[in-house]
Amino acid sequence: MKISHIEHVGIAVPSLEDAIPFYENILGFKCFAIEEVEDQKVRTAFFKVGDTKIELLEGTSPESAISKFIEKNGGRGGIQHIAFAVEDGVANALAEVEEKGCKLIDKAPRRGAEGLNIAFLHPKSTVGTLIELCEDPNK
Amino acid sequence: MKISHIEHVGIAVPSLEDAIPFYENILGFKCFAIEEVEDQKVRTAFFKVGDTKIELLEGTSPESAISKFIEKNGGRGGIQHIAFAVEDGVANALAEVEEKGCKLIDKAPRRGAEGLNIAFLHPKSTVGTLIELCEDPNK
Repeated sequence: MKISHIEHVGIAVPSLEDAIPFYENILGFKCFAIEEVEDQKVRTAFFKVGDTKIELLEGTSPESAISKFIEKNGGRGGIQHIAFAVEDGVANALAEVEEKGCKLIDKAPRRGAEGLNIAFLHPKSTVGTLIELCEDPNK
Repeated sequence: MKISHIEHVGIAVPSLEDAIPFYENILGFKCFAIEEVEDQKVRTAFFKVGDTKIELLEGTSPESAISKFIEKNGGRGGIQHIAFAVEDGVANALAEVEEKGCKLIDKAPRRGAEGLNIAFLHPKSTVGTLIELCEDPNK
């Protein structure tokens, strides 16, 4: 597996509308997209930073992983996952890391925000961190 | 304040020696430095990924912020902070964000790993996320 860069850092927030002004007015970033991903029960907001992105995530249902993360975190937001861009395809990467003994949340790539193919590794195999692998199918 | 890129993502781990093999053998990164930062009571391990880095952090004392993070997280590791590289100096950036009402953990830059000048913003002002600003004084 060849990872080229961090595609994005996923940050859970209780409310996009409350969080976006901090990223725009204090840090100076520009939100370039807001998207709902029904499959994951989240709304997302994206900011470009160098060759990577910040993805803010708000849960749209109490059952979403983001809502559960925030509830477990005492109602506060925080960094929920890190996503690495793989060069040789997510399916190949999943096969390779599973062969090496890494547990997977997603056995096959699925469609994430921005039309990317994505899959999550299981935190039990990653020393606690939620790690996403992703690729842009149009590149 | 002009942020050029994500300088690093800080990931707390119970043990560097247990975590480094995952990042090297499964994700394919190469650890290029291990450093103890006595001031912060941590040992750090660095991996370059695109134009940013992964910084693994292990607490060297129960009083370190990393040890407390892991304890609060049920003994597991996780993403603890995100560090942005500022172009016009950390001191200037702190003055600017404080003027805009952002609370600070560090009122002035201090020396962090890799000889960087660093300062942390207070999570109460950042929608929950621990955010570090940093600059390389030799650039």
